[in-house]
Amino acid sequence: MPSSWGKIFRVSTFGESHGTSVGVVVDGVPAGLPFPEEEIQKDLTRRRPGQNDLTTPRDEKDRMVVESGVFEGKTTGSPILMKVNNQNTIGSDYDEMAHVFRPSHADYTYSEKYGHRAHVGGGRSSVRETIGRVAAAGLARVILENELGISTVGFVDSIGPIDSNITEDEYPISRDLVDQFPTRCPKASANEEMETLIRKLRDEGDSVGGVVKVVVRNLPPGLGDPVYDKLDADLAKAILSISACKGFEVGSGFSGTRQTGSTHNDEFYIEEGTGKVKTRTNRSGGIQGGISNGMDLVIRAAFKPTSTIKKEQKTINDQNKETILKAKGRHDPCVLPRAVPIVEAVVNLVLVDAYLYQRALQPKWFMKYANLNAIPNQ
Amino acid sequence: MPSSWGKIFRVSTFGESHGTSVGVVVDGVPAGLPFPEEEIQKDLTRRRPGQNDLTTPRDEKDRMVVESGVFEGKTTGSPILMKVNNQNTIGSDYDEMAHVFRPSHADYTYSEKYGHRAHVGGGRSSVRETIGRVAAAGLARVILENELGISTVGFVDSIGPIDSNITEDEYPISRDLVDQFPTRCPKASANEEMETLIRKLRDEGDSVGGVVKVVVRNLPPGLGDPVYDKLDADLAKAILSISACKGFEVGSGFSGTRQTGSTHNDEFYIEEGTGKVKTRTNRSGGIQGGISNGMDLVIRAAFKPTSTIKKEQKTINDQNKETILKAKGRHDPCVLPRAVPIVEAVVNLVLVDAYLYQRALQPKWFMKYANLNAIPNQ
Amino acid sequence: MPSSWGKIFRVSTFGESHGTSVGVVVDGVPAGLPFPEEEIQKDLTRRRPGQNDLTTPRDEKDRMVVESGVFEGKTTGSPILMKVNNQNTIGSDYDEMAHVFRPSHADYTYSEKYGHRAHVGGGRSSVRETIGRVAAAGLARVILENELGISTVGFVDSIGPIDSNITEDEYPISRDLVDQFPTRCPKASANEEMETLIRKLRDEGDSVGGVVKVVVRNLPPGLGDPVYDKLDADLAKAILSISACKGFEVGSGFSGTRQTGSTHNDEFYIEEGTGKVKTRTNRSGGIQGGISNGMDLVIRAAFKPTSTIKKEQKTINDQNKETILKAKGRHDPCVLPRAVPIVEAVVNLVLVDAYLYQRALQPKWFMKYANLNAIPNQ
Amino acid sequence: MPSSWGKIFRVSTFGESHGTSVGVVVDGVPAGLPFPEEEIQKDLTRRRPGQNDLTTPRDEKDRMVVESGVFEGKTTGSPILMKVNNQNTIGSDYDEMAHVFRPSHADYTYSEKYGHRAHVGGGRSSVRETIGRVAAAGLARVILENELGISTVGFVDSIGPIDSNITEDEYPISRDLVDQFPTRCPKASANEEMETLIRKLRDEGDSVGGVVKVVVRNLPPGLGDPVYDKLDADLAKAILSISACKGFEVGSGFSGTRQTGSTHNDEFYIEEGTGKVKTRTNRSGGIQGGISNGMDLVIRAAFKPTSTIKKEQKTINDQNKETILKAKGRHDPCVLPRAVPIVEAVVNLVLVDAYLYQRALQPKWFMKYANLNAIPNQ
Repeated sequence: MPSSWGKIFRVSTFGESHGTSVGVVVDGVPAGLPFPEEEIQKDLTRRRPGQNDLTTPRDEKDRMVVESGVFEGKTTGSPILMKVNNQNTIGSDYDEMAHVFRPSHADYTYSEKYGHRAHVGGGRSSVRETIGRVAAAGLARVILENELGISTVGFVDSIGPIDSNITEDEYPISRDLVDQFPTRCPKASANEEMETLIRKLRDEGDSVGGVVKVVVRNLPPGLGDPVYDKLDADLAKAILSISACKGFEVGSGFSGTRQTGSTHNDEFYIEEGTGKVKTRTNRSGGIQGGISNGMDLVIRAAFKPTSTIKKEQKTINDQNKETILKAKGRHDPCVLPRAVPIVEAVVNLVLVDAYLYQRALQPKWFMKYANLNAIPNQ
Repeated sequence: MPSSWGKIFRVSTFGESHGTSVGVVVDGVPAGLPFPEEEIQKDLTRRRPGQNDLTTPRDEKDRMVVESGVFEGKTTGSPILMKVNNQNTIGSDYDEMAHVFRPSHADYTYSEKYGHRAHVGGGRSSVRETIGRVAAAGLARVILENELGISTVGFVDSIGPIDSNITEDEYPISRDLVDQFPTRCPKASANEEMETLIRKLRDEGDSVGGVVKVVVRNLPPGLGDPVYDKLDADLAKAILSISACKGFEVGSGFSGTRQTGSTHNDEFYIEEGTGKVKTRTNRSGGIQGGISNGMDLVIRAAFKPTSTIKKEQKTINDQNKETILKAKGRHDPCVLPRAVPIVEAVVNLVLVDAYLYQRALQPKWFMKYANLNAIPNQ
Repeated sequence: MPSSWGKIFRVSTFGESHGTSVGVVVDGVPAGLPFPEEEIQKDLTRRRPGQNDLTTPRDEKDRMVVESGVFEGKTTGSPILMKVNNQNTIGSDYDEMAHVFRPSHADYTYSEKYGHRAHVGGGRSSVRETIGRVAAAGLARVILENELGISTVGFVDSIGPIDSNITEDEYPISRDLVDQFPTRCPKASANEEMETLIRKLRDEGDSVGGVVKVVVRNLPPGLGDPVYDKLDADLAKAILSISACKGFEVGSGFSGTRQTGSTHNDEFYIEEGTGKVKTRTNRSGGIQGGISNGMDLVIRAAFKPTSTIKKEQKTINDQNKETILKAKGRHDPCVLPRAVPIVEAVVNLVLVDAYLYQRALQPKWFMKYANLNAIPNQ
Repeated sequence: MPSSWGKIFRVSTFGESHGTSVGVVVDGVPAGLPFPEEEIQKDLTRRRPGQNDLTTPRDEKDRMVVESGVFEGKTTGSPILMKVNNQNTIGSDYDEMAHVFRPSHADYTYSEKYGHRAHVGGGRSSVRETIGRVAAAGLARVILENELGISTVGFVDSIGPIDSNITEDEYPISRDLVDQFPTRCPKASANEEMETLIRKLRDEGDSVGGVVKVVVRNLPPGLGDPVYDKLDADLAKAILSISACKGFEVGSGFSGTRQTGSTHNDEFYIEEGTGKVKTRTNRSGGIQGGISNGMDLVIRAAFKPTSTIKKEQKTINDQNKETILKAKGRHDPCVLPRAVPIVEAVVNLVLVDAYLYQRALQPKWFMKYANLNAIPNQ
């Protein structure tokens, strides 16, 4: 079950929703960095369910423990183990589902692939698996912020049929701002509509999907590695590897396919004052030829409605008999608010690895774009 | 410039559009397989430009040469080098562009990343790079067909504003059928409209984008590897690594996000007669939890309008001066018809690698699903 | 600090000698295997110091904890986290060494590479790092034993100037037999001499090196992957990655270089009765062209004398001043007895990965050589 | 047949001895480097057989062709394809061997592993496979020389029973000096004895083994990556992956195991004048804890006698019948002189990859140790 990511900043996650712990080993971390334990904990807390009545009411504390790779507050260059102990045990809620395949869930495919049920809370297909990635990404985020000045901010762009209609000039500039909205859709009117919809569906035992958008600012040009590790290709993979994700777009995405080249192309110009190369529009979404071009990176991720719902559904059981399922347990009627920090996390994992790879091969690029004062001395 | 793909079936491409050759080294190929040289050549020929007046008029012959890894018509288990020699030399068409950054093209980002221009026909960002992938994928396709009975058929689903409106029951069942349509949109009415649009834009020196859809039939359940190498994640990466691709969807994709769980979930049932597990709908697109579920795999790939157009555009040059570009040379007004075999190719590369990995770890699965008569004896 | 091993059976270790824990995440484990917790614990216990007066007197309990990847006694296919919590804290013994570079130790090179001292018990350069590998290898060993009937037995072949002179027909047939000898040299006379030497050197505050030999029986022909992952190449890397190892030999090794081809070549013959292909001699050490040939695999690993000794030594400190070091703390006068299970472990990690890779590519080989009854059903 | 090497500087070789070509694709090469075509050709020529009467008389021209990745004399960052076309065709010399397994050769194991014979000149097990590595290593060597001032010089240390007895202060300082001796043993008396022995064995249809020693000067401290990619571990793997290699030593190797810690440890001191950290002896061979320590890197590689000899030998054929083999064809009576540039090559491949990885993670180390003027500008 390949659970590792990255060419240099190497992330290996482990843990099931109802095992002892979930977490990550991060290898390929530069030595001598101040270890941002609080920042990482903050990211884990943002990912945590039970923060308001819109998400699953499990109140998991998700306190991170670091067991290796950090000494006297600094990274040592050794693999860093970060984990969160699971506090829930397998509830009787899951008993009923032990032998029934939930529609559109990973139950059946895990069973066919591995020959066993992953029924107990979803095993590795649980969103709880993302704890390891979020922890590793917290470290990545701080490296990117300190060394390149990059900022990554995600938000909910739509839930069900409700579009935020947030335009380019309204993109939120901080995660804190986004967090002021329970749905993480930083537009008051849309947020309110979304809240109403989610509560209604929750009460009906139903669920709904939506779209997360992420904007990365201050990315230098030059990140991403054609032809297989293009920045958008790695982002697409990272994002599709999140449970329930069914689509990915960069820049103009699917809607751009309806345009002509002359209306779609992003015209270059020289910014007055700074002399910087810019484009007047950003249909490229900050990436050209798989490489960042210095404009904002803009991507979208589509999440289907949560498949585990309380409404009755026809399905089959593991004896190949047709049956009726009415799921119990605690389930998110809408994963979108919680998906925001997860999508941000995998974006930061992709970016930090592209950055380290680029500085291996083109160190003069590094000396030009990085804040050398933030690099630990040897 | 990471140009390798795959955990086991390892594909490493090389070559620029105007270098000596483009091609691929494939390692991790089972020994003893009949080498399908003609099938591979057929795939390369389908990818070739100049097959009708809709695509770029370069008539590249694209004859494949095999230099290693095959002996007396069989694979030996050694790396297989397949390549196509380039016949074009750098034309004067490109001179003008040597110092100008084409809008929305990789010129500028290559320059920032590698410190040099890739102007000569696009270098590695040229679609000609895909020759290596298509050759490797031809071999992958034959393995998948012979050993698992899988068939992969792609087609053009939309061009610009023209939708094919091809429904699930109209999906074409063979590549030959698709190839009867110059646009590779296998619906007569849409094909005709698309042809007209492309010719009009070509005459205007403009270009247009579109969407490719791929359907994979007879995929057994169990392929794909959570959490990072989920089948849809690897597909997303493979497809986004194709030049000009800006979006990926599996199953219901972005439109599914607007639904509720109760309307979106795919109900399981037991097929009468065969006793097989099926779902009544296929919004999952054949993948649940990152693993194939035995239904048709259905994905979509969004391609932006070709960025190199003959119409005048404002841009900058490599001296950071603003200027006007009016590109010469031979450029595709619409890459969609040629994108079809390329998208099919990367899909087959993903599938064959998932298959070999699965048989490493779960050989009883292999003994259950594979046609053992097609496996070479030791 | 690349701490991962293997193409398919993927081992990622973590932990420092005086951090919270040391351990391993193993990914790429077939699902459905009975998890051999006791066997793994047995291997960890064999690796443990303090088993007799010849090794360092720390009595570390080394109780393994499993936190993921195992459910109801079986592997699930998910990453398996195994770890041992550290019981010792940083002692004052190490204070003195905090600023002094021990001769021939990793202190100085870690300092130059990572910009920090790994003085506290050696950090990742401590032999305690091997706990993760031994745990992972315990699982590998059981797979190899059950599915292929392979047995791996190591022993001490020499300590300092004392050679065991154990000949091919005297190779011990079980680990239990080896463990009856405190030095793990399974020849009574040599064992006794070695014990005396080690005690003498311990009392003098000195140390001594030696050689471990490992014999692997019942290996089928066909394991190992030219050209870079030849079986002997992977074994060499695995063994040289153990602290204090300075040399590796397979078969006739260095002494074979003094022979002629006609005296060195291993003549093939057909074994009467079984009809098996055998060689009359085994100077190849069971490997030809990087692939196992069905004869016993025989390798040797050279370990230098422990560098940390209590005798006074001239050295420098981290202020670049020359100084005198007289190390305190608990140090092995001779690592050889404890090196035996560690060398066996890395050998088994190499073998299991070669086995899984071979069954990915040549499944008919697998169906011929493996005990299919030991393979879990899907 | 995993034929790729390296985490960043990624080398993928291809080609069989009697296929169309042999060569390499090198990916992960910094862009903007002057491409050292002549230096690489020089290395290939040094590897070539037929340079004097001591080696196999095939006069292969080995002219390198570059087909991608280089433009106007500079690396572009794209994969570089270098190859040599084969000029020999399959001779009748090999007919006889087509169905006979040569003792101690890879014939039998290839047959068991891949289900086919590699008889035609040895296929991938031929030393001709190393052409790709030597070409890639030529590029690596120039990077190491220009950016770090490293020099790598190998020589023959013994052939059969004849030791060179070259002491540390006699290590040759240049490859040119070594090449003045037909055996590449740069000591006149030993060279003469070795020549006599090789000629005698050649006339008898026999062969002999020997040992290559490589000394790397001016290596900065800090290269090599615990725990699995320790410098000596990677070197051991690289060297054991060369055909006919049976052993590896770093520094004191096997002989050091007979010493005590107090006599074996390398005492640190501060060099007068330079203030550099040095050790008075170099039993560590330049590596401590898997990381270079700034002293000369010293390693030894053991090569068995060539297994293909003209003398009659008992063996079996591929019908499992015992038979007699008297090999024809052109075979090296002693591979040692030609092994020297091959061992140097794989050493340089290991070093360049360790260097690029180190500069990814510890760029301040890079800025301290590298000649920044030799780094291409972005």
